[in-house]
This record gives sequence, C-alpha cells and structure tokens, in this order.
Amino acid sequence: MSGRSFTTKSIFAAAILCIVGSMQAGAQFPTELNVMPLPAKAQLGSGALKIDAGFTLAFAGYREVRLDRAGARLLLQLSRETGLVFGQAAADAAKATLVVTTDHASKPVQELGEDESYTLEVTGTGAKLHAANPLGIMHGLQTFLQLVSITADGFAAPAVSIQDQPRFPWRGLMVDGSRHFISVPVLKRNLDGMEAVKINVFHWHLSDNQGFRVESHKFPKLHEQGSDGLYYTQDEIRDVIAYAHDRGIRVVPEFDMPGHSTAWFVGYPELASGPGPYQIWQQWGVADPAMDPTNEKTYKFLNDFFAEMTKLFPDQYFHIGGDEVNGKQWDANPKIQEFMKSHNIKNNEGLQAYFSQRVQELVVKRGKTPVGWDEILVPGVPKNIVIQSWRGTEALATAAKEGYRGILSNGYYIDLGWSAARHYAVDPMEGAAANLTPEEKQRILGGEATMWSEYVNWENVDSRIWPRTAAIAERYWSPQNTTDVASMYSRMEAESTRLEWLGLTHRTYQRQMVRRMAGAAAPEETAALSTLTEALEPVKDYEREGDKIPPSNQTPLNRVVDAVHPESEVSRRFSVAVDQFLASSCKDAGEAAELRGQLAAWARNDARLQPLAQRSSLVQNVSPASEALSQAAELALGALDRIAQGLPSSPDLAKQQVAALNAYEQQAHKSQLTLPARAAFQKLIEAGGSGGACANGK
Amino acid sequence: MSGRSFTTKSIFAAAILCIVGSMQAGAQFPTELNVMPLPAKAQLGSGALKIDAGFTLAFAGYREVRLDRAGARLLLQLSRETGLVFGQAAADAAKATLVVTTDHASKPVQELGEDESYTLEVTGTGAKLHAANPLGIMHGLQTFLQLVSITADGFAAPAVSIQDQPRFPWRGLMVDGSRHFISVPVLKRNLDGMEAVKINVFHWHLSDNQGFRVESHKFPKLHEQGSDGLYYTQDEIRDVIAYAHDRGIRVVPEFDMPGHSTAWFVGYPELASGPGPYQIWQQWGVADPAMDPTNEKTYKFLNDFFAEMTKLFPDQYFHIGGDEVNGKQWDANPKIQEFMKSHNIKNNEGLQAYFSQRVQELVVKRGKTPVGWDEILVPGVPKNIVIQSWRGTEALATAAKEGYRGILSNGYYIDLGWSAARHYAVDPMEGAAANLTPEEKQRILGGEATMWSEYVNWENVDSRIWPRTAAIAERYWSPQNTTDVASMYSRMEAESTRLEWLGLTHRTYQRQMVRRMAGAAAPEETAALSTLTEALEPVKDYEREGDKIPPSNQTPLNRVVDAVHPESEVSRRFSVAVDQFLASSCKDAGEAAELRGQLAAWARNDARLQPLAQRSSLVQNVSPASEALSQAAELALGALDRIAQGLPSSPDLAKQQVAALNAYEQQAHKSQLTLPARAAFQKLIEAGGSGGACANGK
Repeated sequence: MSGRSFTTKSIFAAAILCIVGSMQAGAQFPTELNVMPLPAKAQLGSGALKIDAGFTLAFAGYREVRLDRAGARLLLQLSRETGLVFGQAAADAAKATLVVTTDHASKPVQELGEDESYTLEVTGTGAKLHAANPLGIMHGLQTFLQLVSITADGFAAPAVSIQDQPRFPWRGLMVDGSRHFISVPVLKRNLDGMEAVKINVFHWHLSDNQGFRVESHKFPKLHEQGSDGLYYTQDEIRDVIAYAHDRGIRVVPEFDMPGHSTAWFVGYPELASGPGPYQIWQQWGVADPAMDPTNEKTYKFLNDFFAEMTKLFPDQYFHIGGDEVNGKQWDANPKIQEFMKSHNIKNNEGLQAYFSQRVQELVVKRGKTPVGWDEILVPGVPKNIVIQSWRGTEALATAAKEGYRGILSNGYYIDLGWSAARHYAVDPMEGAAANLTPEEKQRILGGEATMWSEYVNWENVDSRIWPRTAAIAERYWSPQNTTDVASMYSRMEAESTRLEWLGLTHRTYQRQMVRRMAGAAAPEETAALSTLTEALEPVKDYEREGDKIPPSNQTPLNRVVDAVHPESEVSRRFSVAVDQFLASSCKDAGEAAELRGQLAAWARNDARLQPLAQRSSLVQNVSPASEALSQAAELALGALDRIAQGLPSSPDLAKQQVAALNAYEQQAHKSQLTLPARAAFQKLIEAGGSGGACANGK
Repeated sequence: MSGRSFTTKSIFAAAILCIVGSMQAGAQFPTELNVMPLPAKAQLGSGALKIDAGFTLAFAGYREVRLDRAGARLLLQLSRETGLVFGQAAADAAKATLVVTTDHASKPVQELGEDESYTLEVTGTGAKLHAANPLGIMHGLQTFLQLVSITADGFAAPAVSIQDQPRFPWRGLMVDGSRHFISVPVLKRNLDGMEAVKINVFHWHLSDNQGFRVESHKFPKLHEQGSDGLYYTQDEIRDVIAYAHDRGIRVVPEFDMPGHSTAWFVGYPELASGPGPYQIWQQWGVADPAMDPTNEKTYKFLNDFFAEMTKLFPDQYFHIGGDEVNGKQWDANPKIQEFMKSHNIKNNEGLQAYFSQRVQELVVKRGKTPVGWDEILVPGVPKNIVIQSWRGTEALATAAKEGYRGILSNGYYIDLGWSAARHYAVDPMEGAAANLTPEEKQRILGGEATMWSEYVNWENVDSRIWPRTAAIAERYWSPQNTTDVASMYSRMEAESTRLEWLGLTHRTYQRQMVRRMAGAAAPEETAALSTLTEALEPVKDYEREGDKIPPSNQTPLNRVVDAVHPESEVSRRFSVAVDQFLASSCKDAGEAAELRGQLAAWARNDARLQPLAQRSSLVQNVSPASEALSQAAELALGALDRIAQGLPSSPDLAKQQVAALNAYEQQAHKSQLTLPARAAFQKLIEAGGSGGACANGK
C-alpha cells in the first residue's frame, strides 16, 4: 500500500491542518481518521474501499460463536449507519470484503492485561483484520465501523494501515445502580456504547444507602427489604455479564462497605453498628450507619454472602468499596469503643483498617482480588489489592511506589458536569505519577469514569455518560500525546452520532423533556425553551446538593437542570467562535454577524419564553436563569457592536458590566444552572473595554 | 359537578374560540379537551385534579390481571409524561386518586362489537372511571392520560365528565410485514400507539410476493424458502396476539391468495398455475404467479394450512386477501383453460370467484368468518363475509345494500403520502353510504388504515403511520361531525408528543437519517439538509414506482425521500400563515416578517447545502429538489415584498412565475419529492399579480 507514514504524533499535525480546512489533495477523506479513540499507529493509503450492498464479512483462523455474534453486530450496525441492506454471507470466505483472522481463543473469563491489540489493513479492494484473540478482533471491528462514512461516491472507508493496542489495560465505566435504579435495557445500550469506544471494564456499583440492587438467594431480605422492588435478578445479572463478555468487557461488581450500607440494614439490622430499625435512605451524602467491625457475625454473614456473589460474578476482581465512613455510629456504640480499647485500635481509621483486612481475607479466600476506594489503603494491607482513587494522581503515585496497583477515577467523575476537555486533560500518569519508575508505572492500570446516579435516571443517564465518556475512553486507550482538544471535539461529535445508532438516547432525551415542560405549547414557545435548554449547563461539582428542592431519589428529575447537557455544544461553539473573532479577524463582518445572530437570539429569548412560564410551573422554575441568559447576552451584544464599530469603551464600564455578568451567573444558579458562555461574554466586554476593535493589534 | 354542558358539537365551537386565543376565564385549561380521538360527549367542570407523586390508582368491581397490567402501564406512561415518581399503591383503594370500576369480564377472545364504552369523571379531588368491561376501561385510561398536562400549578387534569363510546366497532390498522419485514419490537411499539388512540384491530398482512412471514410447522418450506430468513415464529405471533389482547386490540391475520402469492411457490411450486421454479419477488406491483384454482391439491394444501393457522390466530375473522390477480398464468395454462371450459367458467373473474368460494368454505369449516378485498364480492357469495374496500365508499355502499358487511380502506392508504387533513376528510358513511337505510348502515363496520411496506422499514415505518393515523382513528371513533381541521392538527401534534413517550420513532428518525446523509459534516451543513428535509414531502400516490433507482426490497431506504415526513409540518404551518396573511391583515408587518424569514431561509438554503452535496452522494441525489425549493422560495419572496409594499404586478408576470413554479415542482419530482408549500407560493404570487396588497379589499 502506498501512502504517507503516520505516527500518532503526525496524525495530530494533520489534525491541525484539517482544522484550518486543508484536505488531502484529490482524496475523499480528511487527513485525520474520524476514529475515537485514535489508534496507536495509522498509515493512510490512497484510495478507499467502497461499502455497498455487496459488502461481506468472513472469519478465518480460530472460530467461536462470540466472533460470529460480533460479526453479526458489525453488519447490523453498518446497516443502520448506512441504510444499506446486506446479503447473508460471502460465498467464498477469502473473497469477503472484510476478512477477519483470529489466532486463538482469549481466556474463558476475560482477564486484566490480556492482549487486546489488532491490525487493520484497508485497501481499495478489501480489508483485513487480524488479532491474536477475539478481544483484539472486537476492537478492530469497531475501528472499521468508525472508518466508514458517506462520500461523493457512496459509503466508503479510507485506505489505511492500522496497528493498534491500548495504553492502559483497565479502562472502565462505573454505573451506580443504587441511588437511582438503572434498568438492564439501559445498561445494555450503554455496554454497546462502551464496546464502541473500547472500554473494557463495567464496574457495577450495586449497593449503597439508597438501595441494595442484587437478588440474593442466601439473604433475600437484602433485595426484598433493601430496595423499592427494583433490583437485578441473578438471571438478569448473568445476562448482563454474558452481554458484556460478548463485547470484550469485564464486569466488576461493587458492594460498598462498611459505610454506604444502610440498605443492607433494613433487612439485617444486626449487621449495623447502631440500633435499628433502618429504612432505605432517600437523601444523598454520607449517612451515619456503618457495619459493625467488632461483631463476628458480620464476618460470618459476609463470608456467606461472598460465597454466593463471587460465584455469580466470574471476574477476578471484586470491589468492596470502603469509602466515606463518618464513624458516628462507631463513636456512639460503647461495645465498639470497648473492642477498640481491648484490641489497641486507636481511632476509627484503625477500626476501618481492621474491618478492611478481615473483609479482604474473605474475598481472597474465594480466590478473588479485592478492589477498593482510597480508604482501604492503610499500612500493612497486602500488596495484591487494587486501589481505585477518588483522591487523585498523588494518592495513586504514592500507592504505586509502595507496590500497590491502582486505577484513577479522580478527574473522571462524569456526574459533576465537567466539560469533555476538562476530563480529557486528566491523565493517570500526570503529576507525581510522571516521576515513577517504569516498574511503578506498570502498577497504574488505567482509569474509570464514574456515573454516580443521584441526579440521573433512565431518561437522562445516557446524556451524562455520552459523548463525554468517549473522550475519557480515548485518554485510556490512545498514546499519552493524544491531546488535541479541537480534534477531540470534532471526533467526539461524530462518535456521538454513531452512538445514537446503538439506541443511546443522549441526544434525543432533551427534546422530549423540553416538550414535557412546555406541554401543548405553540412551536415558538417550545423553541424558546429549547434555546434556553441548549444554551445552559447544570451547576458543577456538588453545588446541586444545596438545591432548594431537597434532593432525594423521590425528587422528580424533570426540570431544566435535568434536561440540559453537562456540556452545552451551542455555548461551546459560540465560545470557540468568540476566541477566533477576537484573536484573528476582529472586524470580519461575517463572523461578527454570526456572533450577533446568536447573541440576539439569546437576548430576546426570555421575552419569547415568558408566556410559557406563566402556564408551566416547570418553566416558571427556570425564569431567573432565562432572564440571566438574555440580559447577559444583551451586554455581550453591546460589547460586540462596540468592537465591530471600532469604538473604545471605558475600563470602568467593562468592570461594571463584568460585575453584572457575575450577578447574572449567580441568578442562573438559583435554578441550579450556569451560563457556560459567560467567559466568552466577558472576553467580548473586556475587549471592548480595552478599546480594542483589534485585540491582536490588527 | 358544576360547569357548562358540552356536546361534541359545542366542543367544536369552543375549539374555534380556542384557536382565536380565548381561554376559559380563570381556568387553567383551554375550553377544548386536548384529547384524540375526541369523546362522544364531554362536560367541562371547574377546577382541576392535581397530579403529583401522591397519585394512586385502584381497581374496584371485576378484577383480572389484564386490568392490573393496564394500570401499571398507565402509571408507567404517566411517570414518563410527567417525570414524577409514583409510590407503589394506595393504602385505601377507595381513596385512590383514580378509582377504576369494572362491571364484568369481556369475551375471552375479543369480539367485534363488544361494548367499548366508558364514563370518566374528573373533579378537583379525584377521578372515577367506570365501564362494563375491561375494553372500556382501557379506552378510558388512555383518555385520562391524555387529559394530564403541565399547568402553572404543576401537572393536572381538568375537571370533566366524559361519556364515551366508539362510532364504529372495527377501527383498524393494517401493517404489511411482507414487502419489508417489520419486526416484533417495531410492531409492539405500534400496538402501544394503537391503544393510545383507541384502534382496536391490528390487521397483519403476513404473506405476499415478497415474503411469507409466518412459521408453519405443517409446511415449513413456506417460511424457510418463502422468506429471506425474516419471519415471525409461532411463539412470537402468540406473544404479539397476547400483547394486543392486553391493549383491547384484535389481531386479524391475512394470507393473500390466489394472487400476491409468489413467496408460497418458492417452496411449493405445485400450488402455482404456471411452471416453476419460483423465487421470492423483489419488485413491487402485480406479479403474474397465482394459485391454481383448478387443482384439488391446492384446496387440500389450504385446508391443512388453515387448520394450523386458524388455531394460531384466535380471532373470529380470517383475511384471505383476494386482490389484484392479473390472470396471465391462468390464460397461459391449457389445463386451466380446459377446466374453465368444462365447468362453464366464462372468464378469469369467474375463475377467481370459483376459487374464492372454495377457499371461503375452507375458512368457514374452521369456524371463522372470511374477510377479503373488494374482488371477493361476486354474485352468490355467502352474506357472512366481510369486504375490505380499497375501491371506495361506492363499492362499500353497494355491498351493504346487498347485505354484506364492509370496512373502508380507500382513502386511508397511509403509504401514499397524503396529508392528515385529506385522510381525515374521508368518512366511511359519505357518498352513496349516506343514503343507506339504518339497517344497511349497520353493515359498514368501520375502516382500516393500511401501511403497505414497499417504502418503509424499521427506521421510517413509524413516521408513515404516526401521527396521521391518530387523525384517522378519530374519524373511526368520534361522532361524524368531528371535522374541525385546525383542531385536529392541534390535538394531533400533542398526541404525537405523547406517542414518542411510548418509544415510537416517528419524529426522531429523521435527524438520524439526515446525519447519515450528511456524514461528519459541519453543523451548518447538517442544518441545511435538515431545513430541506423538513420542508419537503415524498411524491404522492404511486409516482415513486417510476423512480430511476429501480424500486425493490433491496433498494436502500436511505435517501431524502425516505427521510421526509409524509406531511411537512413546517410547510403546513407556513401555508396556514400565508392564508391568514392574505385573508385578514395583508400588511401586518410582524406576519410579513415571519413569512419573509421562512422564505429567506429556504431561498438561501441551496447555497448552504452545496458544499455537502459535493461530498455526499446521498445529498447530491437531492440537488434538483434543493435548487427547486430555493428558487421557488425566491419567487415567493419577491411576491411577498410586492404585497408588503402595496405594489401591483402584472398578471403576465404572475402567469410566468406560476409556470416557473410548476417547473420547480417537476424538478423536485426528479428526486421523488414535492414542494408542499407550492400552493402557498402560488397564492402569494397571484395576490401580488392581482395588484392586491390587500387581498380582501382592505
């Protein structure tokens, strides 16, 4: 195959060319692959492989039904993405459009660190995918799928030679099924999404204060009394595990203890450190109840419980939580205090270490490797455990130095409303980790995005996971120098569309939620609510906990804050356009007109929305934010006009307007919302204020 | 309950008030119920029933699991529509928010003409639903659901007293599973939609030239060789029937014969009138192959086949097709010609009558009532059959006079791309039927919308059925004088949103299809393709059969013609706005600006789309239509400016421009598309041309 040689690094150079509008001369494809995560190494060829109704797929080498199903999935997804109807099979396997060759089986139960590499060669006449085992094949099939797009000559994949393997062996997504129950169909469509971006661990957070979500035959009061009737049956769990296995995804269960365990105590109060009775907790935060580490019956119970659950979940790793024990029940229990004294345990941290050690022994006894949050790492704990760090890279690096393996979750909390770029900038090897020895670095296994479910349900959970988790997945898979943010957003948007073909609702949910709030409103009014919803974002981090509507799992998730995307694509694009306008061509009439159009639409939007706010309580609720957006946009509009006309404005005025802007931002927070374009508004105001029609001295 | 008394007629008067903006003084709801189909009788009260998380539902009187499931469905759907989380059950059934009382069971196998009436009383403190049997209850639950909407005070249902029953007992939707296979999940979501609008017959067209779609244990080559592997297993069929039964819907199977039967002959060529071998037909239209009416083995086969199928399908009615035999195989077969001579059968019509009579006997022998298309009505056929008329009300009225029962499908062919208003205007009792005696009128059982599947698949079939079938369902259910088109469109749009909560994809499919055609295009370009797609409609009736891409079930349904709605909502609203502008306030600046905004957007759209057309063959394909829309809009824009400025224009110019408009329309047809706003454009051009700034002499 002729063509230029591309390392990942030169792909980025190409990406930048691409962004400024350059296209490969004479070719149908941009110089960058529209693939996410980007492969480790890719060499573009010339020409393209046409994909039409004659497309066929054939397997060679090692065969198993999982491969056949992966092939059927490829054909189904390719058919969805193209609208083409494919024939049943190639008559002659060697002549298939895509020939897939597998050397041997992977492990029966997927293991951490198995070979996931593959090579993919696409030429004008066919494609060849090769891997040592089915795991690499499944990743390669997803890459092939991402290569196909519409061209002037129908659907096609560019000629390319790809050699790919992951950077980290543990690339996870945690889903919290406890606080809001996330049903099996919703999980399955998200497993499809995980497969698409090569995530290989589904970490299933199965119990917490708000619900025990697994059917236990041995201790049926766990799910019967510890849930509102919504739990996963063992059949469903086996089905999910099989579904994940089919997609090269391990399933790591988590049973959080000794804290985050109120739901256990509803049926089994004797496990707790304080007197019962207990009820399922409906609020968020850290609850007082914790297991009693001083009661041998606790360990007896857990021993039997683990016997059941380690059989149900085949993965080598078994997550025992261990986070956020506030110790209040322990402090208040004289028997526990007595135990601590007699065992020379100095404080609650020591008591938790004691508990943790006992529990880990029970897990190890079942042949499993314990995983836990930072708190389980205490002096003397065996080296075999894996630390999941919500604290950060420093903690992870320290652990690695001490010989512990770890995975990073700090920086990947997708429930906190961060932008994709902010998550993308977090790297498990940054900070202290950068200075580790190669051997120590090996202990940093990867990372996990965590979808805590306080503010998500079946309706908006996809939108909190996707498409941002695709960017995080790229961080885990692609080489460390894969850091071009504009390229990331461009490819993430394309991946977002592909994810929709899998049935994910991360884009479609919003319009339905808007319609719910608008009722049978006129289209103009519904459009005004859409404009508002598309422009705003939820408050970040844990600010929502202070909502005036007390947050609990009984609170309806039907407000604008639940409907907005964590990252507003409209506001992000506006902000990028403002930067371009201010940096390079501040008087470009076309650019100014485009910015003006958006600002004018936002400025008049509150007035358009008001009639609806009079008729819908859910819209009324968001009136402060609506007013804030319109008034802030009005200020920015004035600033834009000054810039466009080359008029100076006083720093005093700018200062005053920025203060007003901050007040609008605070006003939006009353509806638990933020104005993501606020920084761009401020840039316009200050550019005007600094007298600059030409910010760059033009 | 205090309040004004409303018959359906006065509801329409109120609807008109509503349209001009009047609201019931002091109340939260418009005077018209936002319900489809409109009930036979409704009396609005004062106040409203608040719907919050405390909403409960309880059953009294006769109980069965089907009712429990209907209640669970109501709660699920209400939860989706409101975002509220409901508790599990009311502690005291009598104190439930909605108390549902059922007198007795309905028939084990749902029968034609069973009582489907119900009464629903909603007050500020609670709601009571009463019906003789579960069928009425299921209809009443759907009405209750439709009453709930967002208000300034949260979700609520208006106080109202409803007495409701259907106008016709046979209210059907036919789905053709043969030409394109329509899978069970797609059927189920459509059954949910049927329940929502009180359709009570699912007519399942199961065999045709393009596929035999039912698993037959007795004759397995029917589905094995007569399909491409896509067929309904008997388990799936029982599942669909149970699903429909749960929703008050009968399932009437159709096996079309003696024509439309090529797929039978692939496995059983001996049934045909000409020599084999046969292949599944992939084209559309009338095929030559037909069963051999002169061969006793044909009847033996059908006798055994019916034995199996009449057991599988419990409904009393059994559809044997009978339409469109071209007779070519009969003419060409000397043995058949000989038989006709020896039996004194004069022509092919006579031969089909002979076949039809023999087949009907076999159906009746199994205790079933035969249903067939117009062609089965020949002199001497027993009175027990039911005629489904694709020919029209004249044929239906003639049959009724002769003592035959019938259902109307002419005018309800939803595959032909008609507007909802056009279907809505068709009434089974119009024309000759209006002059029937009351007894004869009783024989007109209702109607059926028919979803022939030449140009639909899993992706766009919902959009061809919904929301227009909701308007047709209203024709079948509501009193004959329910004819206000503006009211229909307003309520149909609201129902369309509710249907989306059931998982129907009739609105969401389009954006994904647009993204497929656009590939990874910039948002502006994708928006241009959306603008085009939203503005256009497919060519009507059977014009698409002349497509230059030969139509068959191998042709991808991935072009703009497959993505456009049968009725463009944007163009419809534009056309209504033009009528208002021309009729009443032709110089209203706001109205003119709004029309100008839409026309300007269309006028510049082709230029915006061109870069994408260079890169996507699917967009290139639609270039003629894109250019036609923009140029037609440009003409209308000029006309609007003349009108707004009060300038006269010559009739000659208008004539010339209308000719150009017609040429643009023809140009759009090259892409199998039409310009639905063309008539509105012409009105603007002719209003300008007639010198009228003030069309109504203002």
